[in-house]
Amino acid sequence: MTNSRLAGIFTPNIVPLDDDGQINEPELRRYTDWLIERGVHGLYPNGSTGEFTRFTPDERRRIIAIMVDHARGRAPILAGAAEANTKETIAACEYYHGLGARAVAIVAPFYYKLSPPAVYAYFKEIADHTPIDVTLYNIPMFASPIDVPTVQRLAEECPKIVAIKDSSGDLPNMMRMIAAVRPSRPDFTFLTGWDAALVPMLLVGCDGGTNATSGIVPEITRKLYDLTVTRRIDEAMALQYRLLKLFDAMLYSADFPEGFRTALRLRGFKTGKGRQPLAASQELDLARISDGIQCLLAEEGFTGEPDSGCPPKTSSADPQQVERIVRSVLEELGREKS
Amino acid sequence: MTNSRLAGIFTPNIVPLDDDGQINEPELRRYTDWLIERGVHGLYPNGSTGEFTRFTPDERRRIIAIMVDHARGRAPILAGAAEANTKETIAACEYYHGLGARAVAIVAPFYYKLSPPAVYAYFKEIADHTPIDVTLYNIPMFASPIDVPTVQRLAEECPKIVAIKDSSGDLPNMMRMIAAVRPSRPDFTFLTGWDAALVPMLLVGCDGGTNATSGIVPEITRKLYDLTVTRRIDEAMALQYRLLKLFDAMLYSADFPEGFRTALRLRGFKTGKGRQPLAASQELDLARISDGIQCLLAEEGFTGEPDSGCPPKTSSADPQQVERIVRSVLEELGREKS
Amino acid sequence: MTNSRLAGIFTPNIVPLDDDGQINEPELRRYTDWLIERGVHGLYPNGSTGEFTRFTPDERRRIIAIMVDHARGRAPILAGAAEANTKETIAACEYYHGLGARAVAIVAPFYYKLSPPAVYAYFKEIADHTPIDVTLYNIPMFASPIDVPTVQRLAEECPKIVAIKDSSGDLPNMMRMIAAVRPSRPDFTFLTGWDAALVPMLLVGCDGGTNATSGIVPEITRKLYDLTVTRRIDEAMALQYRLLKLFDAMLYSADFPEGFRTALRLRGFKTGKGRQPLAASQELDLARISDGIQCLLAEEGFTGEPDSGCPPKTSSADPQQVERIVRSVLEELGREKS
Amino acid sequence: MTNSRLAGIFTPNIVPLDDDGQINEPELRRYTDWLIERGVHGLYPNGSTGEFTRFTPDERRRIIAIMVDHARGRAPILAGAAEANTKETIAACEYYHGLGARAVAIVAPFYYKLSPPAVYAYFKEIADHTPIDVTLYNIPMFASPIDVPTVQRLAEECPKIVAIKDSSGDLPNMMRMIAAVRPSRPDFTFLTGWDAALVPMLLVGCDGGTNATSGIVPEITRKLYDLTVTRRIDEAMALQYRLLKLFDAMLYSADFPEGFRTALRLRGFKTGKGRQPLAASQELDLARISDGIQCLLAEEGFTGEPDSGCPPKTSSADPQQVERIVRSVLEELGREKS
Repeated sequence: MTNSRLAGIFTPNIVPLDDDGQINEPELRRYTDWLIERGVHGLYPNGSTGEFTRFTPDERRRIIAIMVDHARGRAPILAGAAEANTKETIAACEYYHGLGARAVAIVAPFYYKLSPPAVYAYFKEIADHTPIDVTLYNIPMFASPIDVPTVQRLAEECPKIVAIKDSSGDLPNMMRMIAAVRPSRPDFTFLTGWDAALVPMLLVGCDGGTNATSGIVPEITRKLYDLTVTRRIDEAMALQYRLLKLFDAMLYSADFPEGFRTALRLRGFKTGKGRQPLAASQELDLARISDGIQCLLAEEGFTGEPDSGCPPKTSSADPQQVERIVRSVLEELGREKS
Repeated sequence: MTNSRLAGIFTPNIVPLDDDGQINEPELRRYTDWLIERGVHGLYPNGSTGEFTRFTPDERRRIIAIMVDHARGRAPILAGAAEANTKETIAACEYYHGLGARAVAIVAPFYYKLSPPAVYAYFKEIADHTPIDVTLYNIPMFASPIDVPTVQRLAEECPKIVAIKDSSGDLPNMMRMIAAVRPSRPDFTFLTGWDAALVPMLLVGCDGGTNATSGIVPEITRKLYDLTVTRRIDEAMALQYRLLKLFDAMLYSADFPEGFRTALRLRGFKTGKGRQPLAASQELDLARISDGIQCLLAEEGFTGEPDSGCPPKTSSADPQQVERIVRSVLEELGREKS
Repeated sequence: MTNSRLAGIFTPNIVPLDDDGQINEPELRRYTDWLIERGVHGLYPNGSTGEFTRFTPDERRRIIAIMVDHARGRAPILAGAAEANTKETIAACEYYHGLGARAVAIVAPFYYKLSPPAVYAYFKEIADHTPIDVTLYNIPMFASPIDVPTVQRLAEECPKIVAIKDSSGDLPNMMRMIAAVRPSRPDFTFLTGWDAALVPMLLVGCDGGTNATSGIVPEITRKLYDLTVTRRIDEAMALQYRLLKLFDAMLYSADFPEGFRTALRLRGFKTGKGRQPLAASQELDLARISDGIQCLLAEEGFTGEPDSGCPPKTSSADPQQVERIVRSVLEELGREKS
Repeated sequence: MTNSRLAGIFTPNIVPLDDDGQINEPELRRYTDWLIERGVHGLYPNGSTGEFTRFTPDERRRIIAIMVDHARGRAPILAGAAEANTKETIAACEYYHGLGARAVAIVAPFYYKLSPPAVYAYFKEIADHTPIDVTLYNIPMFASPIDVPTVQRLAEECPKIVAIKDSSGDLPNMMRMIAAVRPSRPDFTFLTGWDAALVPMLLVGCDGGTNATSGIVPEITRKLYDLTVTRRIDEAMALQYRLLKLFDAMLYSADFPEGFRTALRLRGFKTGKGRQPLAASQELDLARISDGIQCLLAEEGFTGEPDSGCPPKTSSADPQQVERIVRSVLEELGREKS
């Protein structure tokens, strides 16, 4: 397993907390089992969904240690390893390597917005000293962007860099990266962090995704992956439409990742409260948001409806109708135009 | 033809100018023939590629008149009809209707950045008075955005609005629009103006595209459409990679649409100089850019190489290799994971 | 007057419309008188506040003709002259020159976002052929930005370009422009279009402003100018705080320039409805907004309170208190630290 | 001193490192002396210039401990105290309080972009538990913005929050904050972190600044403050123009804060290399940039010229000429218009 290709769905997991705001280890272990049993290909702790910035360096190590220990080789661990500077990050790489993680993911420097040469120099220094495979993590809405020439240069110069996880959602840019890197590094892996475009991203050649939805509805994200790689495109696309609704509801309803934490609670986990405090108005909002997400989960059969019930499904909310229409349009087009 | 569905590839054509900077009517007619003969499904004059803002109101009318006259029903005309205000725009709608255009496309108000209610009110006023079908034109990088609720509301209230042309390139947002509108308006048409994602956009349910590349390499854009609607996805995707290279070269190499004008010249048309003056440094750049584009066109067999020759194809530039790799990865994934 | 320095407050005036949406000439003439009588140094028709994009080319000419005729040399006219392309713009320059306008203001090309060399080439072509002095108009939120090197180059190469009107509100950038241009062109004029920072802009060396507030409360904008140039800084700053409240209320309450149109109505002018249609929700909002603006105008003694009355002035709304506090802090600082 | 008003110039100091990249304590102590001797009113370690994100939690504490110890009450310490979450941040507040720091500065949450209620909840939780005065730190280009209503609400509810440091450079927004907060909290302090507008910010009522330039040319920043609070506006403004040139050269020439580190080296301090690695191209750039900054420092009399000499002062670079022109324009305006 330790040298397997980083492909498929890697789950960026939320970390359950107890009433004191500390890591809830038993619940984290139970969550790890639950995810593996539902078929995700790997686990990605200490990602953005995992709120890595809100834990201390020691806590980040403990999270990885618990999950590597609990996964026991059933699923590879991609460990978020960004620390305060390259020296600390390299030390984390060594530690995670020792634990048996499959690879690390390192977000580009954040807070300061760095130029491409600085982003290059940062990853080059790490790649020259890491004992474990490195995944670049590009998330331009939160961190310095890793542009295409920088990805290409790092891929060509650094054998220890084996993958990029891109959460920009920019599909043509993903294609540019693939076109720039694959010829010289056919082993290089491209993972998308943008669930809303997972099917199209896989179709342009991505190897998989690190998708927050897979922490909540692993059944759907996994199925969507399977349908796509076996080229059952119509079914995949219809499922992508349904996933988009869930993704939008969890992502845009509240400060990230509160929507996902709320949904995970609905799936039966004691998530605890997040470490970022909430205003009273946000607490009220979340109760309402929870009902909305529960209705979507109930539609998919994962939960019952909330006590207050769900609105009648409007025609615009019917994914089967959408699928039917998409198909009929495509058929008609195929008949008329080609 | 006048009531046909707005589907397939509509070409937003550049307007050839003569030495005095005036509309070169014979060349515009020749270009119209050339496009129709190469299989584009429709023509879209007075779009952004057509530099509608750089012509006077009278010139805009003349361009449509020439092209409707010359197409003689061989291809529907989607006429860009945005004028200074709703009264002028409605008058243009009437004029284009009288000429026999199939529909008009109207960009959201620009210069001022308007709120969604103002965008709604603008299109509602036009839709209530137009005799001709209207296509909304969403291009948020240049004009006020038309958000999903506004598209939905206009689609539900205005039967004269029959389509949206979206040039944002935002794939999930296109899906949101389709999911919001199709159930109540199955006849509503979605066209993408973002060539870089044409295949994925068609796969999520778009009916076609208004693609600047189709004015330069109509053979490729049309083939890409045909491959997609007949679900030859692997071939379509490989061609999408090649189109992306051309699109990037023409779009990002120079102030828009100079890269496209340069390329059209290479396809044998007397485009004349554009109306936006160029600095000396830009003229020099364009000579170099022209060679780069010509090399890409030569790769596709549309032109010879430039006198200065072309760089040897690097491995990273080999679309067949990309296709081969994408396929093998997908096959491997299909084997291993599903 | 025709060769006077472009200094002081130039009013970018709204154009009153009649019930048919046509230019209300008598009211425009009455408004012109009113502004001149209240002391603005010049008039600036066909600016952004004047909604130049929503009039036809003929209407734009008529607006200038009316105002030049009516001003009869009592105040210089800075005529907005941007048309579809350089040829049309130069023709407008010639026309406005013939009418007796003092200068024209030409916004950088909009819709397309142009590179600095293209912006340079555009203004250079115009400057080489215009018979009338040209003011560059930089408004990066609506049009292609005119960066500092471009301003410097144009100022050095083009004697016909005599000023820049900058509506970015970026104070350090204004200083960079002044530092770059003044040494070689001491006659060059810098006008700010950002009322919220008028006093500081004058203090760094601007010659005046083209300020939308001066079309509504010319008394205040003019007084603010006078206090600043005579270095009664404390009084100027206290007035700037009061103007900021009015500016924010008119600018951010509604789609621009509806807040200003509403306020002008409160000052006794028949503005008519704007040409950009309003949704019903916007009409409702404007009624409420109108009351809020009226309360601010009533505070300044320009109108009575609205029928519904005004909220009691909270402590935070008391400009005199702000002035008192600012002064006492400054005095204290002067005592303690220097 | 511990209860003194937070007013005047607080220096956000760079931390000198030794050859191993560790904190160079002797040099940090020497730098502390140097700054105090040159008249800065306070010190602000662990700010953005101090690269707080690139140190470990222990190192951040050590930096404050060294500087409080060394300042020995000669200058108040404003200690940057942001840690991974509110619990860790409150612990840091307690620690810095115990050391004898005057107050802490806490940047809004970064990486994730939080909504106003979340920003409010974050600071409220800290303010309810801190034993030491808190300065809000608003730097929207790097962290979640703290908007005006949030500042007002926190100021009204939290007596422990005594100040805001705003590095947005948005002058009207600073005025909005002052107008919203001062009436109910006359003791509340407003500090600007945007050196390019220091004089205007002081004139609108700011109490001082946390200015990176004061770590390099404390003589200038301090003098600029003194000239402004004693209302020698013309001299202050001329000096602001000179400071702007230095600020731009240090800020925009390289990835922040490399330009400042380079300049500090020129002032005679062993800064060591920064912890963010540099690409070879950046090292080359910095050598050139260093010469440029040295020429500016030499102009001010702080260093000799670099070995390669300096370009002849062009007219556009002559601050005295700018001052002369600004003055004459202002005089002329005062004569003509008022």
